[in-house]
Amino acid sequence: MAIEGRSDDKAGGRIRLGMVGGGEGAFIGAVHRIAARLDDNYVLVAGALSSTPEKALRSGAALGLDPARTYPDFATMATQERRRRRDGIEAVAIVTPNHMHAPAAEAFIRAGIHIICDKPLTTTLKDARRLKLLAERRGIVFAVTHNYTGYPLMRAAREMVQAGELGEIRVVQVEYPQDWLTTRIEDTAQKQAEWRTDPARSGAGGCIGDIGTHAFNLAQFVTGLTVAELSAELTTFVPGRRLDDNVQINFRYANGARGSLWASQVAPGNENGLMLRIYGTKAGIQWRQDNPNLLYFSPLGEPTRIITRGSAAAGAAAARVTRVPPGHPEGYLEGFASIYTEIAAAIRAAREGRAPDPAVTFPGLDDGIAGMAFIEAAVRSSARNGAWVRL
Amino acid sequence: MAIEGRSDDKAGGRIRLGMVGGGEGAFIGAVHRIAARLDDNYVLVAGALSSTPEKALRSGAALGLDPARTYPDFATMATQERRRRRDGIEAVAIVTPNHMHAPAAEAFIRAGIHIICDKPLTTTLKDARRLKLLAERRGIVFAVTHNYTGYPLMRAAREMVQAGELGEIRVVQVEYPQDWLTTRIEDTAQKQAEWRTDPARSGAGGCIGDIGTHAFNLAQFVTGLTVAELSAELTTFVPGRRLDDNVQINFRYANGARGSLWASQVAPGNENGLMLRIYGTKAGIQWRQDNPNLLYFSPLGEPTRIITRGSAAAGAAAARVTRVPPGHPEGYLEGFASIYTEIAAAIRAAREGRAPDPAVTFPGLDDGIAGMAFIEAAVRSSARNGAWVRL
Amino acid sequence: MAIEGRSDDKAGGRIRLGMVGGGEGAFIGAVHRIAARLDDNYVLVAGALSSTPEKALRSGAALGLDPARTYPDFATMATQERRRRRDGIEAVAIVTPNHMHAPAAEAFIRAGIHIICDKPLTTTLKDARRLKLLAERRGIVFAVTHNYTGYPLMRAAREMVQAGELGEIRVVQVEYPQDWLTTRIEDTAQKQAEWRTDPARSGAGGCIGDIGTHAFNLAQFVTGLTVAELSAELTTFVPGRRLDDNVQINFRYANGARGSLWASQVAPGNENGLMLRIYGTKAGIQWRQDNPNLLYFSPLGEPTRIITRGSAAAGAAAARVTRVPPGHPEGYLEGFASIYTEIAAAIRAAREGRAPDPAVTFPGLDDGIAGMAFIEAAVRSSARNGAWVRL
Amino acid sequence: MAIEGRSDDKAGGRIRLGMVGGGEGAFIGAVHRIAARLDDNYVLVAGALSSTPEKALRSGAALGLDPARTYPDFATMATQERRRRRDGIEAVAIVTPNHMHAPAAEAFIRAGIHIICDKPLTTTLKDARRLKLLAERRGIVFAVTHNYTGYPLMRAAREMVQAGELGEIRVVQVEYPQDWLTTRIEDTAQKQAEWRTDPARSGAGGCIGDIGTHAFNLAQFVTGLTVAELSAELTTFVPGRRLDDNVQINFRYANGARGSLWASQVAPGNENGLMLRIYGTKAGIQWRQDNPNLLYFSPLGEPTRIITRGSAAAGAAAARVTRVPPGHPEGYLEGFASIYTEIAAAIRAAREGRAPDPAVTFPGLDDGIAGMAFIEAAVRSSARNGAWVRL
Repeated sequence: MAIEGRSDDKAGGRIRLGMVGGGEGAFIGAVHRIAARLDDNYVLVAGALSSTPEKALRSGAALGLDPARTYPDFATMATQERRRRRDGIEAVAIVTPNHMHAPAAEAFIRAGIHIICDKPLTTTLKDARRLKLLAERRGIVFAVTHNYTGYPLMRAAREMVQAGELGEIRVVQVEYPQDWLTTRIEDTAQKQAEWRTDPARSGAGGCIGDIGTHAFNLAQFVTGLTVAELSAELTTFVPGRRLDDNVQINFRYANGARGSLWASQVAPGNENGLMLRIYGTKAGIQWRQDNPNLLYFSPLGEPTRIITRGSAAAGAAAARVTRVPPGHPEGYLEGFASIYTEIAAAIRAAREGRAPDPAVTFPGLDDGIAGMAFIEAAVRSSARNGAWVRL
Repeated sequence: MAIEGRSDDKAGGRIRLGMVGGGEGAFIGAVHRIAARLDDNYVLVAGALSSTPEKALRSGAALGLDPARTYPDFATMATQERRRRRDGIEAVAIVTPNHMHAPAAEAFIRAGIHIICDKPLTTTLKDARRLKLLAERRGIVFAVTHNYTGYPLMRAAREMVQAGELGEIRVVQVEYPQDWLTTRIEDTAQKQAEWRTDPARSGAGGCIGDIGTHAFNLAQFVTGLTVAELSAELTTFVPGRRLDDNVQINFRYANGARGSLWASQVAPGNENGLMLRIYGTKAGIQWRQDNPNLLYFSPLGEPTRIITRGSAAAGAAAARVTRVPPGHPEGYLEGFASIYTEIAAAIRAAREGRAPDPAVTFPGLDDGIAGMAFIEAAVRSSARNGAWVRL
Repeated sequence: MAIEGRSDDKAGGRIRLGMVGGGEGAFIGAVHRIAARLDDNYVLVAGALSSTPEKALRSGAALGLDPARTYPDFATMATQERRRRRDGIEAVAIVTPNHMHAPAAEAFIRAGIHIICDKPLTTTLKDARRLKLLAERRGIVFAVTHNYTGYPLMRAAREMVQAGELGEIRVVQVEYPQDWLTTRIEDTAQKQAEWRTDPARSGAGGCIGDIGTHAFNLAQFVTGLTVAELSAELTTFVPGRRLDDNVQINFRYANGARGSLWASQVAPGNENGLMLRIYGTKAGIQWRQDNPNLLYFSPLGEPTRIITRGSAAAGAAAARVTRVPPGHPEGYLEGFASIYTEIAAAIRAAREGRAPDPAVTFPGLDDGIAGMAFIEAAVRSSARNGAWVRL
Repeated sequence: MAIEGRSDDKAGGRIRLGMVGGGEGAFIGAVHRIAARLDDNYVLVAGALSSTPEKALRSGAALGLDPARTYPDFATMATQERRRRRDGIEAVAIVTPNHMHAPAAEAFIRAGIHIICDKPLTTTLKDARRLKLLAERRGIVFAVTHNYTGYPLMRAAREMVQAGELGEIRVVQVEYPQDWLTTRIEDTAQKQAEWRTDPARSGAGGCIGDIGTHAFNLAQFVTGLTVAELSAELTTFVPGRRLDDNVQINFRYANGARGSLWASQVAPGNENGLMLRIYGTKAGIQWRQDNPNLLYFSPLGEPTRIITRGSAAAGAAAARVTRVPPGHPEGYLEGFASIYTEIAAAIRAAREGRAPDPAVTFPGLDDGIAGMAFIEAAVRSSARNGAWVRL
């Protein structure tokens, strides 16, 4: 158990971080700030926190930012911070609505600043691919915060799959039900609901982009399988809503496995019910995000075992991202923080012109691109009455 | 709470029951016998328990049957029992492999004997419809043992849906994973596996017929919705197996709701994991068969409530089929027995030439026909690459 | 898995059973009748079902008993049934309030009839010991229905303890909370509450006799340990109630282990929350009655394993009393029925003048006596301000 | 939901914090540091991290402390930091083994520095009372990190009790089982085990001081009841161990309620199983620390409700210490951090010479004193064979 990460990780001091979006009333920006702070690898020093200048200033002040580094927009921030010799930001967290991800990311890539971008990566697959080209050319560390891959037991599950403990995988069941959009709250000035149901800001996917991509990403992360094709049914239940709020997708994997993904934002009683189940020839596993410290492992013909986060049975990959002993629950913020800590290791390696430790693992541009490919394929399949579409 | 059913139900004495199938080594026959006995509404007096005459005799003796009423085949039994004036069987339980259901049922219908038939009803939709015509003409009580509808909390759920407590239903998620066919045990002389994976005895569906129909039936029972069309993916994972062992199906309901059904017999860690979840505009519910005494009810925006079997909150429909107080778990056999008790009420009404109490509820020929239509549509859709098929 | 018990068990036909108590409005009598019927080892043929003659007759009729064998009182029944040469009852179930157990049992012992008596055995330890002397002299099979020992996984737990899988036992935590006596319902003509809170009918213990004895018995059954002394705190919370409704007891075992027992009938949210936890030098186990098909087994330093009823891991002792496969839940009635089936094996052995199979296990007079000793010691300790009292 | 606390809380900048103990190999020191950092209210600037000077220096360097403020001992630190005019520490976290709490606390009180002290407060009740006198005289903010009171749903539970939702409380069941001391690991150079089983460093209590005090404190925090007297059984199971490793205590409360506390460090399968259950005349509640985002609330005669952290039903007291929405689990570190954030509010109020907001709630000297009184009473009762001892 490594409470605060390896001390050598702290070499060279904390990473100077900026933030785009995340001002007053935002949700995920604050999560990113806690995640950055938790393991003490970052210090937030600059921000373009809102597209409303007055709100940007107020938000910066509330966070104790230097007013000189509280910018009215991301372009100014990228330009100004690039020019600072000694203390310009090294990395930026982009936590705006989806449609701003690509332009902001491009500006910071051009400024040579590493990027931590919320998901989905962009609003089109084309933009996503373009960002990859740009970032690779400049040697930018580019992370996409599919934070659920930061949970220790999801890393344990992945390690178990890789070690063959499940045998050949046959069935993948992933689901992500929520209930907060059961009624038309986008009409009630609820900011989170408003932009997430607006195609101009969210892109072509509603529920599928907001949470379906998380479920898709997590299943990919753990299984390592390739989805060959999918058949999707996207539905909008709430009258007047402009994007899907319920998603059912079947997968055919390249190895012959089959999968199902259900995501919904209109399922009362589900607050944030991400669940992953994987079945192979030798064993099955089950994990729920809302009680993330338990992994159920069922070897065929033997009793199910409850593997707890922090226990010896959770293995090395989980131990790397574990802070406190078993029985002391870690949760959402810790999982998110582990992603930030992994990114920090990559940024520090980049500082020193070396490759990061091979154990360092976080979702990046390929995951972001896969997510956009998933959204576009699903939207296309659904529009074609559920026809199987290659991914 | 009615521990032993209403006493007026016992009027006219116990119902004389015969059984076809269910001899040595059978599973479901013994379950039917316990179910018939539990509430003391039936007495088993005759049997054609095996197609092997010697085994039929031995099985009859083990059950204490009169050797004169231990028959070598169902046809003889139907003929002989019909002729007994005073003590011939009034009803017969058909618990053979699927392919024998239709011929046996036809023989007993013609003998004027009521029928309790295991599921699926037949091996073809055509046979199923034919049985309905025959039975109706003769005034036969014909039950199909979709036993999971006997669980008190499934009746509570149905009553809640009917009362509008969920609002308009939008999403139905039903699943039925098992793991006992993960390997090719049909090659190991495991009788249950052997006939269930044999198209000649099971019909066109494997997993879908054996357990998929249960899941389908239960969802229909509780929601009361009409499936308009389905898209199915039937897969056979175990090499050499002749029928599907994993099933993913999406539904479009006539009211616009969407549903998913997953059934599998190759999902390690799932012993008998039937689970039903239903989401409406006002609330959601969740129930698992393996802990059937709890129903989770989640009114939108309020805490989830755990409704327990036997409690006041479970309502009148559940109370009718409840024997012991909350906290004293009832299980699979009690649910099955409740179906038998409901059928007994119908048979007693038939004895007296009256309609049964409107509260009496058990699955019958329409359910059996719907199950066959479901199997055939799913097989057809899967063969057509998941095309949407009308039901 | 033995769905209906071994066929040799049925040799000589079903056991003729009588019942004392259990008429209209009773609870546990109906449970005994189902338990007797479930595995088809008994046939109920006589009864003294109520101390009110008219009610006794009506109750007998409702159960389909021969009016000639529906007796006005247990004494008449014992006398009359003894005289029947060929078809007198072989066994009697005594399901009255506690204070009638001893006189009824004595009458049937003297009539040479085997006895299945509800718990607690009597209202005084002295009576309990006296019954033992009488019964032993006559070779009577005498069972006390501590039914929770009939649950397969409690038998598995016992077998695991005996096999040393827990190591030396150190700590035993057993609890049995209920909530049905939270208010003074004994004043509302609730029959069950009325006699259970009446010292004249219940004896010196309220909650401790009604459910505390079950908890005590179950812990003894599984651990096999000897309680050396106990310290008890019996409390009556409901104003005007005449017996305890909450019980806290600490144990010192002869081997040095320590234990705690909590029983309560005033704990809202607990319907029938019997739970047993045992910790040894090598492993711990946990089991809850309200979801009795799971046993949690935690070897020190390894993941907890969920042993399911019906699975191979549950072992031989559990398999003997298991009817249906794992995932098909068995419950309270099945556990109770298994006790009856075990008793049937003993009665059949007695019929034939041989000892029963050594695997046959059910609670008898020693358990009943231990229960009475437990009640009396606890009442004495509580009266002496929690002083440690030898058992 | 307040992701980062109220912005006015940040007025005057982050609080300058020092730490005593918590160097290399320590556990709880790292937890305190994360807790201090999570809501961004503190900055760690000084430390006397180890009693071994070399280790102190190395530990300070690893944390990025100024070497000039990495002290060899707490006395030097207190003296030096007091003299710094502008940037001396305002508060100190004392995270040493128990026997150092009192002398360190006294030094910092005399230096006018606020104190955040791990539990138990001291090793004797006398010392605890003395600290209170000293601290009050100097107007020191003095917190004792009974961190479990920081869990939002424990605050919800307390608020519910205060609002009368449980009625009059009758029964309190609190338990805290662990398994990490099942074998004699104190002999294996496991630092945590070593000092916790050493009377010279732990005080008179082992398990009772380490975790029993947490359980006691949490029950007091939620119920607000006064324990009148207790009867305790402290046991040492592991041969050669010098302090208790299993604790059973019964309580009599001043209002007539009864309670039980079980704490154990030798219960295999329990990692950190703190659980609190409270039963009143109107309702019961149940909460487990290892899945802390759920509170089970059972109004008498109604279904149990699952109140989730972050939901509206959790109420205002919980909302104050909640960061992320329901379904996104918070855990141990967040609960601990909430204590730190509450203390920060008190320290900021002290800076400004005003009383903190009345809603600010954290455990302080009275809780620490109550904990010591509890330990001493339990040790005395156990030594006197479980005699009831007034608290």
